[in-house]
Amino acid sequence: MNIILLSGGSGKRLWPLSNDIRSKQFIKIFKKPEGAGDKNTDAYESMVQRVYRQIKSADKDATVTIATGKSQVSAIRNQLSDDVGISVEPCRRDTFPAIVLATAYLHDVKGISKDEAVVVCPVDPYVNEDYFVALKQLWELARKGTANLVLMGIDPTYPSEKYGYIIPETKDAVAKVSTFKEKPDAVTAQQYIEQGGLWNGGVFAYKLSYVLERAHQLIDFTDYADLFSKYDTLTKISFDYAVVEHEPDIAVMRFDGEWKDLGTWNTLTEAMEENVIGDARLNDTCRNVHIINELGMPVLAMGLQDVVISASSEGILVSDKEQSSYIKPFVDAIDQQIMFAEKSWGSFRVLDVEENSMTIKVTLNPGHKMNYHSHEKRDEVWTIISGRGKTIVDGMEQPVQVGDVITMQAGCKHTVIADTKLQLIEVQLGNEISVSDKKKYELEL
Amino acid sequence: MNIILLSGGSGKRLWPLSNDIRSKQFIKIFKKPEGAGDKNTDAYESMVQRVYRQIKSADKDATVTIATGKSQVSAIRNQLSDDVGISVEPCRRDTFPAIVLATAYLHDVKGISKDEAVVVCPVDPYVNEDYFVALKQLWELARKGTANLVLMGIDPTYPSEKYGYIIPETKDAVAKVSTFKEKPDAVTAQQYIEQGGLWNGGVFAYKLSYVLERAHQLIDFTDYADLFSKYDTLTKISFDYAVVEHEPDIAVMRFDGEWKDLGTWNTLTEAMEENVIGDARLNDTCRNVHIINELGMPVLAMGLQDVVISASSEGILVSDKEQSSYIKPFVDAIDQQIMFAEKSWGSFRVLDVEENSMTIKVTLNPGHKMNYHSHEKRDEVWTIISGRGKTIVDGMEQPVQVGDVITMQAGCKHTVIADTKLQLIEVQLGNEISVSDKKKYELEL
Repeated sequence: MNIILLSGGSGKRLWPLSNDIRSKQFIKIFKKPEGAGDKNTDAYESMVQRVYRQIKSADKDATVTIATGKSQVSAIRNQLSDDVGISVEPCRRDTFPAIVLATAYLHDVKGISKDEAVVVCPVDPYVNEDYFVALKQLWELARKGTANLVLMGIDPTYPSEKYGYIIPETKDAVAKVSTFKEKPDAVTAQQYIEQGGLWNGGVFAYKLSYVLERAHQLIDFTDYADLFSKYDTLTKISFDYAVVEHEPDIAVMRFDGEWKDLGTWNTLTEAMEENVIGDARLNDTCRNVHIINELGMPVLAMGLQDVVISASSEGILVSDKEQSSYIKPFVDAIDQQIMFAEKSWGSFRVLDVEENSMTIKVTLNPGHKMNYHSHEKRDEVWTIISGRGKTIVDGMEQPVQVGDVITMQAGCKHTVIADTKLQLIEVQLGNEISVSDKKKYELEL
Repeated sequence: MNIILLSGGSGKRLWPLSNDIRSKQFIKIFKKPEGAGDKNTDAYESMVQRVYRQIKSADKDATVTIATGKSQVSAIRNQLSDDVGISVEPCRRDTFPAIVLATAYLHDVKGISKDEAVVVCPVDPYVNEDYFVALKQLWELARKGTANLVLMGIDPTYPSEKYGYIIPETKDAVAKVSTFKEKPDAVTAQQYIEQGGLWNGGVFAYKLSYVLERAHQLIDFTDYADLFSKYDTLTKISFDYAVVEHEPDIAVMRFDGEWKDLGTWNTLTEAMEENVIGDARLNDTCRNVHIINELGMPVLAMGLQDVVISASSEGILVSDKEQSSYIKPFVDAIDQQIMFAEKSWGSFRVLDVEENSMTIKVTLNPGHKMNYHSHEKRDEVWTIISGRGKTIVDGMEQPVQVGDVITMQAGCKHTVIADTKLQLIEVQLGNEISVSDKKKYELEL
């Protein structure tokens, strides 16, 4: 099966674990089944890791492509196997351009035939293996030409106001779509359900040729590379508006397995197997309390009810679970620097911020290296605290090990290459310390 | 007036702001009145700073001596003016030896006449200025020889089970004591109050000669230095048991001003002027929520009621206010390293702990220096991040400024002396990093 996972969103609703550069799908919050073999050696996995593992378990030959923006590439490379494809949107242009770009990527970069089908699916559903079996059925329906577009319709468990509804012509497992309905109020939703309406979970399958033809009608481009280069000139338009609304030949396949959209702390904590992740203690008068603590210090909760506590280097949330869905405006008001980030080569964590200095801990994965780079307005001092590797500073290569100290003046080019896992403390010194003060260079080895 | 402040207690009840080396009296939690001139340049002051400021405001010539253990000396020197006297108990031997030692200190070190009186008072009552005016009256009563011991009796506001009661012979402002009662149950407490009983807040005054004579009856010693040197051989005995119970001539002076014992988060937050100290936001569905946040990251509270949130580098407490008084066993179970400490020369904060390294930020106050010392089992790297001063490493003195890096192998003697306020990042490297791995030397300049 070919699958495109749409990975978007900044995920402020799950602050402080998600932020501008770490979307909710990268938070490691789900207990990993034993023996799940991937790059992740932690006891917990993220939504994207969980979904990827589930796809591979349902179909080990599945080709998985993630359609996403630049800001997520490092985290995806850090969390997933190297054979996942990434279709990087140079800028955000809504779902139609994104899906076209990923489809062109499958054809022109991955060499998949236009007659082949692909399933498009959000990256963050909380589902079981039967969902992926259903995705494969969906893919086969599209492949066989059951319809130009084959959608997954989720059997509603309650008259939700959060989803659009698909009304099928019959109650068969696979049926022609009669009509689509926008997010309704609860009373109308109940009527839709009585008519056999299904939730639209944003999952559909098509032949590559179908979307590419529609794309060429709307966009003037030759192939993937051409589309990529002019991506910023494209009109923002949704897939629904550009494709679905114009298509008479749409089928829907009914799915009645478990399906959850974990978008708020309230729904997310429901999916946690244990009440606590990280160093936390609850006294016995706590009821329905969940704690996710990424900090290296204990959390103690006493006498609380229906509360979620979440702590990371970005901040600490203590919220009534119901109230937690109203978090966004509060997080918008917090003007904050990124304190933790996953990079393709490892991760960094900010330890201390002073007026004219910043101290961070850098962790490189074995065999990985930073970009060769320089800063104009800050000096840096590295102290290696674990592992082995080498540094290159203004072209001078030297092996480094624990205890070695490397000082770099502003303007000097530098990188570190990890032989083993390697950690260092970086002290940045300058009057204007900024993430944007970075020039990258090709490394000549 | 002469006053001895008894400063004890490890204060686990106010975790995570108090810990084994920072007792509750050193937490800066009280909004400082404008224009309060002392060493503390923060907007908040600690209990000990508040009490010291109040004493000086009630009597600017007061000589203040703090009787305490070794572990508190650094914090006292950090927080209070240099002219506060400190009677350091070499080890803990209960209140009688501690009071005798402090009294001998006043006579033999401070040269105060035996005919002079002194007031003994806990270091942490939460009171107003009228309390200190009353202390001065108490001191004058002792001086005039009103009785051998003159106690302060606090007018009870409710039949508390937490205090001992003093039953006076009359209801006069100053009266002879008829009898003392141990902590009663509420019904008995109510009876005591009806008899005119007063809370025993542990405040009393006496002439130096009185306690020194009693001390010589019970302990074989010549003077302060002799007592100090044999302190560890003394029997543990309380002042009540050694003195009060044998004394027929005791008076009590009534005090009806405000007096609070802030021993738990519940009572402490009642004394806070604002609901929030530090970086914290509450949404408008929070009711009776207090947040004290010492971390450099925001706390967001939503939909909580009657909750205290307290965060420091030691950990994070989120507790129902009532429940917070049961905190001690939970804190006892947290085996934790000290993450922040005030020293006589400044302070340090642990930023990162790894298996074979630890990173800390050191802040030295202007004109201060660390002890000249070495470590057997760890190397250290200093990077100066602000200020100017000099380092001495194995006898070699050199001026240092921002950006300078100093590497010290295990065994090498070192110190840093701050000309201005000076901050540095210290990376400790070794297989056995321990606070006890420290040898001190005399500095030969």
